[in-house]
This record gives sequence, C-alpha cells and structure tokens, in this order.
Amino acid sequence: MSLELISFKLCPFVQRSVITLLYKQAPYKITYIDLAEPPEWFLKISPFGKVPALRLDDGTTLFESAIINEYIDDITPPQLNPSDPLKRAQNRSWIQFGEQCIVDQYQLMMAKDEETFDSVRTRTLNNLDKVEKILGKGPWFNGEAFSLVDAAYAPIFMRYDLIKPKDDVMPESRYPRINAWSQALLDLPSVQNSVTEDFSKLLANYIRKNSAYAAKRLVAATAA
Amino acid sequence: MSLELISFKLCPFVQRSVITLLYKQAPYKITYIDLAEPPEWFLKISPFGKVPALRLDDGTTLFESAIINEYIDDITPPQLNPSDPLKRAQNRSWIQFGEQCIVDQYQLMMAKDEETFDSVRTRTLNNLDKVEKILGKGPWFNGEAFSLVDAAYAPIFMRYDLIKPKDDVMPESRYPRINAWSQALLDLPSVQNSVTEDFSKLLANYIRKNSAYAAKRLVAATAA
Repeated sequence: MSLELISFKLCPFVQRSVITLLYKQAPYKITYIDLAEPPEWFLKISPFGKVPALRLDDGTTLFESAIINEYIDDITPPQLNPSDPLKRAQNRSWIQFGEQCIVDQYQLMMAKDEETFDSVRTRTLNNLDKVEKILGKGPWFNGEAFSLVDAAYAPIFMRYDLIKPKDDVMPESRYPRINAWSQALLDLPSVQNSVTEDFSKLLANYIRKNSAYAAKRLVAATAA
Repeated sequence: MSLELISFKLCPFVQRSVITLLYKQAPYKITYIDLAEPPEWFLKISPFGKVPALRLDDGTTLFESAIINEYIDDITPPQLNPSDPLKRAQNRSWIQFGEQCIVDQYQLMMAKDEETFDSVRTRTLNNLDKVEKILGKGPWFNGEAFSLVDAAYAPIFMRYDLIKPKDDVMPESRYPRINAWSQALLDLPSVQNSVTEDFSKLLANYIRKNSAYAAKRLVAATAA
C-alpha cells in the first residue's frame, strides 16, 4: 500500500501524521498544497477541504489526523496504540484534547491585541494545567512506550519552543512534566525531521503577517 | 464495569452513545445535566465541559461520542466496528463528517433570518450530497452490518424527521439513499428509545426560544 500525505507546511495536524510515519518508518510521499488556494483535485477528494488527507493507491482518501494516525499504526506493526480498550480510549481522549491545545496555540499566534492575547493565554495555561496533571513520570505520555498521544502533542511543543519567550506560555515551574515531555519529544529524530528546513522562518513570517501584536509577544527572541 | 452516561436531553452527540448502548444491550445508567448551568462535579471530570461523558466505576471518565462509542463497542462483543483497518478508518472518517452534519443542522435550527438560513441550508445540502454519494444499497452504511456510523447519523435523521417540512432539508428526490437509510434507522427500537418521551416537544421549544425565524421554516408542521 503506497501512502501519499497531502500537507500544508505549517499545519500541526499534518505534522502529527508525519511524526507517526517517520517513527514507524513507513514509506510515504508528501504533497504540499496552499490551503489559501487549494487545488481543484484536493477539494474533490477531501469532504472537509482540510489537511491532512492520506491518499492510498487504490484511490481511497482518509482524512483527520487522529484517524489517519490510527490507520498508519494499524497497518505498520508493532502497534503503538495500547491494546487495553480503556487505555486506548483514554489515549484517544487526550489526543482529542490536544486539538484544543492546538487551537489555543493558533489563537495565541493570531491575537490582535493585548486583551485577546491575555484572555487566550489564560485559557491556554488552564488547559496545559490539565495535561500537566495527567502526565506520569515519562518519558512518554504512557510511560516507557511511545504512543500516538506523543505524536499528537509534539507539534504543539515544537511551536512553543520556537515562538519564545517560552515562559509566556509554558513556564518550567508551572509545568515540569510537560517541559520534560516536550524535551524528550524535541530530541527525537522523527519529530525533528517532521517539518521542512524553512519551518521556523515560515512560522515567524506567518505570525508577523497576521498579527504584529502576537509577533511582539511571541517571536521577539527569534526575530533578532 | 458499570457505565454512567452524562447527558443533556437534546444533545445529538449523547444520543449517538445511547443508541450504541441500546443496540449492544449494554447495561448503563444515565444522568442528565443542564448544559447552560453545568454542576461543579461535571466540570471537574470533563476537561472540555462537554457532553457526552462516560463515567466508569473506577472513577475514570471518557469524553467525545466517537471515542465513547468505540470503547462501548470494544468491551461488548460482538464488535460493530469493521475488522479491516481501511474500512474502519473510512467508517471513522464518515462518523467525523457526521459531526459537520450535526453542526449544519444546529446552525439551521438557530438561523435568525432568511439570509443565514438559506446560506446554511445550501451548505447542509452540499454536505448531504457527499453522504448520498458514499452510500450503497443499504440497509446500513456498510451494507448488511449495522455499525457505529449508523449510530452516528441516526440523531441527525430523527431531528430532520421532526422539524418538518422535511423537503426543505432532505428531499427524497435528491437523497433517495439517505431517505431509505433514515427510515431504516427510525424503525429501529434502539433509535426510537434513545431519547426521552418529551424530546419532540423539547426540541420544538428550543428552536422557538432561540429563533422565531427558524421555527417558522422548520417546525411549522409540528406546531399545529
């Protein structure tokens, strides 16, 4: 089965799937599209018009990162998903909660003024509190075994690591376990290689283009 | 394992789980809350503050209807979810797409004026076109075997059936397969028994309270 991932370079959801593919050493090809002007063929195969989409060689297309990742995991043993149904359901729940954390982060990067930024930041911190509370001793979400939850949160941590000052959103003192988890993920080759080389520059440009205010609060340290 | 479903009477997402529980004849208890004023204990166990939540007797809580339903399915054989990974992934994709159909329906019921109503209606019809196209000969989404996709769409069809004129949103001529699927689902005891007896009245009242315009377009036939 050949796998083609349809991607947008800055999309954290696609990145979840790339990490899973790289971690599982599954061969794949990646096709980038411009989400602002999606090509006609893409709109035909994706009911949502969203990335990621995974196109198989029989013409089937799967969509939604959580679904794509479970499929990749199902067809490339050994399985990362826990075999216990309850543990698996809890993992899925936290992957879903990670989508809220991605939305928080996106809204933070797009915040046009201090009031919006601070209000989103408060919600972001409250949500990260919930993640901190559920984490164990690591190194991964489930302990010793790397899972799809790890692939789901790595894109968030990579962005927070780039859009310093980090203390604004993920202070070590408040989130010791999240910071340790983040570091373990950022050290992983399948996470490091899950974005293109120009990712950091593209991300900073994207923030600056959309919000001068957020750029000042978030990318000051990388702008120099 | 005892199962407690935390519910809001009008929520289509909770109803997906009730249908799954009834279809699989899994014993459960249901606790209703008022989502407008959720109790303190609920906010503590649900990171999203959303229903459904499934509370287990070991204190664990699962959230998100798609995740809850897969868990119910996993622990109560025989499994409804297809065993083939690709088929299972496609089923999950269409369950996810059903969430968009639920959102369409909700926005239709809340539309405050003609312009909004007509614009949402156009999107609703376009999305239903995609469902019509994927359907086979039935009676269920996957053919002969009832699955979680069926449980996921039944709440949508029950509402369209109640908020007549039905031709406004699900015309037989445009959607013959959806209408046949809908009828098969509405004939099923586990669908019929998935709402409280006052459901139809509660739904009509809810629409009237939130949008006089939508009430006029949608509940005219039931208001008499």
